[in-house]
Amino acid sequence: MQRLDWNALDEAAREQALRRPAQQTRASTAAAVAEIVEAVRRDGDAALRLYAERFDGGAPERFAVDAAEFDAAEASLTPALRAAIDEAAERIAVFHDAGMTEPYAIDTAEGVRCERILRPIRRVGLYVPAGSAPLPSTALMLAVPADLAGCREIALCTPPRPDGSADPAVLYAARRCGVTRVFKVGGAQAIAAMAFGTESIGKCDKLFGPGNAYVTEAKRQVALIEGGAAIDLPAGPSEVLVIADAGARADFVAADLLSQAEHGPDSQVLLVSDDEALLDAVDLELETQLAKLSRADTARAALQSSRSIRVDSIERALEVSNRYAPEHLILALRDAREWLPEVEAAGSVFLGDWAPEALGDYCSGTNHVLPTSGAARYASGVSVASFQVAITVQEVQPRGLLAIGPCAVELASAEGLDAHREAVALRLRAAAA
Amino acid sequence: MQRLDWNALDEAAREQALRRPAQQTRASTAAAVAEIVEAVRRDGDAALRLYAERFDGGAPERFAVDAAEFDAAEASLTPALRAAIDEAAERIAVFHDAGMTEPYAIDTAEGVRCERILRPIRRVGLYVPAGSAPLPSTALMLAVPADLAGCREIALCTPPRPDGSADPAVLYAARRCGVTRVFKVGGAQAIAAMAFGTESIGKCDKLFGPGNAYVTEAKRQVALIEGGAAIDLPAGPSEVLVIADAGARADFVAADLLSQAEHGPDSQVLLVSDDEALLDAVDLELETQLAKLSRADTARAALQSSRSIRVDSIERALEVSNRYAPEHLILALRDAREWLPEVEAAGSVFLGDWAPEALGDYCSGTNHVLPTSGAARYASGVSVASFQVAITVQEVQPRGLLAIGPCAVELASAEGLDAHREAVALRLRAAAA
Ligand SMILES: [Zn+2]
Ligand SMILES: [Zn+2]
Repeated sequence: MQRLDWNALDEAAREQALRRPAQQTRASTAAAVAEIVEAVRRDGDAALRLYAERFDGGAPERFAVDAAEFDAAEASLTPALRAAIDEAAERIAVFHDAGMTEPYAIDTAEGVRCERILRPIRRVGLYVPAGSAPLPSTALMLAVPADLAGCREIALCTPPRPDGSADPAVLYAARRCGVTRVFKVGGAQAIAAMAFGTESIGKCDKLFGPGNAYVTEAKRQVALIEGGAAIDLPAGPSEVLVIADAGARADFVAADLLSQAEHGPDSQVLLVSDDEALLDAVDLELETQLAKLSRADTARAALQSSRSIRVDSIERALEVSNRYAPEHLILALRDAREWLPEVEAAGSVFLGDWAPEALGDYCSGTNHVLPTSGAARYASGVSVASFQVAITVQEVQPRGLLAIGPCAVELASAEGLDAHREAVALRLRAAAA
Repeated sequence: MQRLDWNALDEAAREQALRRPAQQTRASTAAAVAEIVEAVRRDGDAALRLYAERFDGGAPERFAVDAAEFDAAEASLTPALRAAIDEAAERIAVFHDAGMTEPYAIDTAEGVRCERILRPIRRVGLYVPAGSAPLPSTALMLAVPADLAGCREIALCTPPRPDGSADPAVLYAARRCGVTRVFKVGGAQAIAAMAFGTESIGKCDKLFGPGNAYVTEAKRQVALIEGGAAIDLPAGPSEVLVIADAGARADFVAADLLSQAEHGPDSQVLLVSDDEALLDAVDLELETQLAKLSRADTARAALQSSRSIRVDSIERALEVSNRYAPEHLILALRDAREWLPEVEAAGSVFLGDWAPEALGDYCSGTNHVLPTSGAARYASGVSVASFQVAITVQEVQPRGLLAIGPCAVELASAEGLDAHREAVALRLRAAAA
């Protein structure tokens, strides 16, 4: 990791220190994705079959997973893994359920009742990647809130394995959450299929989930096309910012940095501390722990573009963090709870020494689909609300119209909207009669 | 209005009946906007000055409205208009305040506390158009929730009038809600200025508000540029769908259709009823009321592409509405409240004969910035939550780690993420020691 002294940096250098690597989608990627999206939109399943042959080494007879494959998947898992998935699903459900948006009603004037009601988004599409590894945890993070929201049509796409089957842990996690419309389709073609619908896969209103550069670009494209689909979050590489004080354990901090770094060579890792000795100790620990990692090459690549930043106070460290707006923020501080009010922008925060980011990834109960690339300044992670719409309602009695109608008439007149004024004035006359 | 019989239509004709006019942005508009965005990004205030001279007939000496102009604006309003703005602002605040998302905390396991905290988006930009008429109501609909959210830096752009001043009602509404950073800049250049910042106008994280085709296209473009700004909602022409039964008053229904139609020639108006006589009566009323309207030409143009649809039951009418997903839905029904559970997708719903859409536009308390073009299927209108981010938090005690750590270890192993597993396993060993 590159070591920087925040105080010694001028404004431009600070900007540079917090810059994420440019995520320019290569023009070739965009063009390839546009071709796939167009083909799937036009040719439906036939296009999916074509791309399965090209990219997955063959198309399955049916894209949809049938009951037999679900059953076989469940039977093939170890009891320990089934139990871990169950346990994580339950804790995620408990946390998400407690935070659900409530309907409410309030009389804003006598005879004027205003309300907010909630409805599930009817048709949602979940994407569960399976690049370097299958991700049953992502299936849980998407399917649990979709289920709590009450979405009626939930489709889940996940890439087939070389033998044409879907990952059994992903299947177990999906069915456990009530998702049985699972399709063995991956990549940009899966996104296009869910956005526009094919013979096998129904059209969806909104798409969720992470993915590689092709998936991300496909989500971006279908969100821009009229008649396409909305998407959950703008996507970027995963990232962590750790603020550690002199009392932090270097081995814990190093382990957290590495667990971020192993996600991919473009993962972002920042360590900020007011203690030079801690930074030195973490550097040493990184080397020791790297030696034992299966994904050491990936982690090493990510650490190449990562930085450890020396600041003169924890207060300054929080300023750096708010400016960066990390997806994950670990406060490895003696008084972590006291610093929480200073956090302005982050996807998810981990307080103290005993809350590794990996707990949030899997089973603390919070969601791991979070805003990256600084989007935490204006966007939130996935929750049940991501799968719902809020609708406002007004119910007005004649006496309510008499009470607030004149206000509307005055404002409509000021805005020169005669028909608006008349729609109210006509009723005022009728109610007064 | 074109009259259609739903039962007599085949699937393609139904699709056609509910089709919105294509909102293809002309290539020339997109290109002009791209040039403006690029120029403002590069040249800042100098570009704003250039465009003010070109489009507004001259640049103001300073873009920012000063205290003297705010004072003069306030003094120039009639007491009745000031009172109406105050009254509307209060009712909007009451409704929005009651629906604010709450922070919460829950122990998902012993020693594992998970929370959601809320933060205002720090820098927000509001756009208040002043095309055919100034819109103080839009200033209220954006500034009230921004203020409730606690946003620290709120900028508001609105086009200057020919004499170089800003509309006094907009200024009064803004300052009343605590917004004093008001800039006399309009059009695509205002959106670009707020997205990237200029010498006068600070950079914003998220932009809100309606606008003409140029403003809409500019919002779309800045949302796509890395380092640009997020936006509130995809934009489209305003629309209403009215469901009326035999007991509805034709004059009320016609007035509501016209108040939608006067918004612009591309406004969408749909009337759905199970009663042919009501449809006939509304047609007659439309002609009578049109004769008295100042904006009759606009309304007539909008009605050209509007449709009244005969259905065989109110149940069927709700199906039509859910399929269309209107921005505004008026249920002019004898038992409107009973039909509310059937509403799946709409921006805002108006129950009964005494709730004209104009009330929601101005002063019932709900927000009038709502999803259009069918976006109600997956998006909600503006609320305080639109100006906030939700951050999740986890605080874990050593005993909490011992409780849930093994679940994380099992899942990390299944996903082949060694460093994730080790970040937890290392702490499990330390906590057990
Ligand atoms: Zn992770
Ligand atoms: Zn209106």
